[in-house]
Amino acid sequence: MENKKEIPYKIYLEESEMPKAWYNLRADMKNKPAPLLNPGTGQPMTAEELGGVFCDELVKQELDNDTKFYPIPQEIRDFYKMYRPSPLVRAYCLEEKLQTPAKIYYKFEGNNTSGSHKLNSAIAQAYYAKKQGLKGVTTETGAGQWGTALSMACAYLGLDCKVFMVKVSYEQKPFRREVMRTYGADVTPSPSDKTEVGRKILAEFPGTTGSLGCAISEAVEVAVTNPGYRYVLGSVLNQVLLHQSVIGLETKIALDKYDIKPDMIIGCAGGGSNLGGLIAPFMGEKLRGEADYQIIAVEPASCPSFTRGTFAYDFCDTGMICPLAKMYTLGSSFIPSANHAGGLRFHGMSTVLSQLYHDGLMEARAVEQSSVFEAAEYFARTEGILPAPESSHAIRVAIDEALKCKETGEEKTIVFGLTGTGYFDLKAYESYNDGTMTDYIPTDAEIAASVAKLPKL
Amino acid sequence: MENKKEIPYKIYLEESEMPKAWYNLRADMKNKPAPLLNPGTGQPMTAEELGGVFCDELVKQELDNDTKFYPIPQEIRDFYKMYRPSPLVRAYCLEEKLQTPAKIYYKFEGNNTSGSHKLNSAIAQAYYAKKQGLKGVTTETGAGQWGTALSMACAYLGLDCKVFMVKVSYEQKPFRREVMRTYGADVTPSPSDKTEVGRKILAEFPGTTGSLGCAISEAVEVAVTNPGYRYVLGSVLNQVLLHQSVIGLETKIALDKYDIKPDMIIGCAGGGSNLGGLIAPFMGEKLRGEADYQIIAVEPASCPSFTRGTFAYDFCDTGMICPLAKMYTLGSSFIPSANHAGGLRFHGMSTVLSQLYHDGLMEARAVEQSSVFEAAEYFARTEGILPAPESSHAIRVAIDEALKCKETGEEKTIVFGLTGTGYFDLKAYESYNDGTMTDYIPTDAEIAASVAKLPKL
Repeated sequence: MENKKEIPYKIYLEESEMPKAWYNLRADMKNKPAPLLNPGTGQPMTAEELGGVFCDELVKQELDNDTKFYPIPQEIRDFYKMYRPSPLVRAYCLEEKLQTPAKIYYKFEGNNTSGSHKLNSAIAQAYYAKKQGLKGVTTETGAGQWGTALSMACAYLGLDCKVFMVKVSYEQKPFRREVMRTYGADVTPSPSDKTEVGRKILAEFPGTTGSLGCAISEAVEVAVTNPGYRYVLGSVLNQVLLHQSVIGLETKIALDKYDIKPDMIIGCAGGGSNLGGLIAPFMGEKLRGEADYQIIAVEPASCPSFTRGTFAYDFCDTGMICPLAKMYTLGSSFIPSANHAGGLRFHGMSTVLSQLYHDGLMEARAVEQSSVFEAAEYFARTEGILPAPESSHAIRVAIDEALKCKETGEEKTIVFGLTGTGYFDLKAYESYNDGTMTDYIPTDAEIAASVAKLPKL
Repeated sequence: MENKKEIPYKIYLEESEMPKAWYNLRADMKNKPAPLLNPGTGQPMTAEELGGVFCDELVKQELDNDTKFYPIPQEIRDFYKMYRPSPLVRAYCLEEKLQTPAKIYYKFEGNNTSGSHKLNSAIAQAYYAKKQGLKGVTTETGAGQWGTALSMACAYLGLDCKVFMVKVSYEQKPFRREVMRTYGADVTPSPSDKTEVGRKILAEFPGTTGSLGCAISEAVEVAVTNPGYRYVLGSVLNQVLLHQSVIGLETKIALDKYDIKPDMIIGCAGGGSNLGGLIAPFMGEKLRGEADYQIIAVEPASCPSFTRGTFAYDFCDTGMICPLAKMYTLGSSFIPSANHAGGLRFHGMSTVLSQLYHDGLMEARAVEQSSVFEAAEYFARTEGILPAPESSHAIRVAIDEALKCKETGEEKTIVFGLTGTGYFDLKAYESYNDGTMTDYIPTDAEIAASVAKLPKL
């Protein structure tokens, strides 16, 4: 059993212990995630259709619900070695400060320049683009982690990289742009006048601060209209969850080394890339009936896809040019209020996670922004790491659960995903420090209005 | 011998392998560093005199040239475990990109929220202040790493923390202030009107962008005029080099594990905290005649204390209220030109390193800012990590040396200190990306003018 003396503050795997294959959770799902649909025909998207937007190998991964393991190409494993394995940290200081009998662990993905787990999929997607002989890739970024990650991967491989950045983030995080430029990327605030869809959105909503869905539309348009380019996406997609399984696999190997069985696994959820990756092997055991875990998705109360959305087919983008995905959604026209800081601002959710949630295999909670930053500051002062606002959603619920254990005396083992650092989120921290941070919960009428625009099939 | 297959990308020590004592390099120096002098009497500062400014235990460490090892208190070792051991990274990607036969390693100290090695001494100094029952500490910060580090340490221990931040950095790095505030610190741009010395400097040089020496004067004034406060300093002092020896000790343990003998060790030098810590055990071997290493200090051409300074007694601060230290100095009235980005802007240098340099035990090189940022960007795109401008001075020379090896075919083993990350230096990166970055080399007349003001003993 556990012994404080025996478990180090940080569990690092040896290079030889690092995962050699990604795990495809879909292979173990009885109820498979619903297929993407062609918005024109209402029929499942074919590999040929998707191939116009995505790289061929990534299309294969996207559509493959059966292959359980995908070997990680050696080149990607070598890149992983530059910043992985990431540590699984035992939060001794947090436990002591909370005076909780709970044992808290977090998988820290922020120790790389992109500042988050996004690099795990960025290098994979850039690698396949390069292998296909493409000239470059296009993408969108919200909080900026994904764009930075993709810029880093493209710089490493010598690929061109065009990033559409949600305007509110572009303005709140000017330095993110400079990181991307330092890595050679071309960064445009979205909506922009560089694309047809951008011009249309600007005309309809002048002064809009943008949304992830809108930036996606622009990036896709540029990819399909420029030969030698494809679009890549940092979250939501099945392929992304596949790549991000490296988080959960490393976590499981580290826990197994010390014979630790978690009771609950907590992760923040925007599009689902971190949560889907973190829980993958654990959910696999659950699906196969080998073990049980309480799995909790945490989302912002200002963008509550799981807790207040509808499980239905919807567009992934505001411009309605992307395929339809069956997911928990607030409607593709939903735009989180401008006071919402950081990421987790996507109107929908990974189809894999949506299906699992629908099947009762995981829970979801929505938390308000100021309580998230309260947890963030508490964590920073206790554990040293300044967390990303996104990650702090998981911290909030981990602390809440640890405090419940304090009341009940239960010695639960809690694992949460600390997806990244908040070094580029200081504007938001400033408003929290100044006491000017506000919360916003959309009204039922607001959500109903955007849900009413869901496509009719 | 070395084998690429056997040496991982990152060498992490186990917790049990982490150093249990700091190494006091002075104990092995035949020519001891000259003592600090009381500027009023010209006599060596006594423990009593220093005790008004510094914590008692730190005064002891400062004056002790004989004790070879200082056990690291358990509380500090526990704090170290939150972010240490830091990785010793084999720069496989950089070697391949440069096509050099050299083997390059770097000790990466940036994987913590302060973004640099400064935390190693911050926690030690805060710990001794707490143990002495003090209410708080005051300090100055240039680039901001030290202030952030001290804020983190004080938040952890529950100490009050007052930081005077060099005005140019305060303006270039507004987000640094927010990190410090998030950790509960009080941050003031220097020179300020909060102190007598600040008001005097503002009157004499209106519009000054400040200097480290001036911020030191303000912080010392606040410490000595407020009961329950002491002043702490992030570099230059003997005690700081003692704490920072943890960098070199870890490096040596990691190298020894793989039987690697470095040929040269390269570090950036501002006040000398990183370099002094990194080289400590290696210089010790050199002093004891057990091994030889080429040791290179790298400094900015815009603030070239080693390469163009004078070895003499000087004030550590602009306000001339601190003790006199015998060091390589440009004169305490020297202020680097405003275009100089980042840290390494101190007019003097650690007395320990000054003595070693004077005795021919190490070399020094001065490099220009734009070539430093060229190296920084090259490194970022190749090794993934966005380096601090300070650290990039060492990268510049490491790359230069690796390219020399390419010419000569020598398979030298190069170790350099990657002291931190550049996440808060994006203004400087922006000017580099925009092509507006400039270099400035002070004229002989400029240096002569400030050297002429050296105190007469």
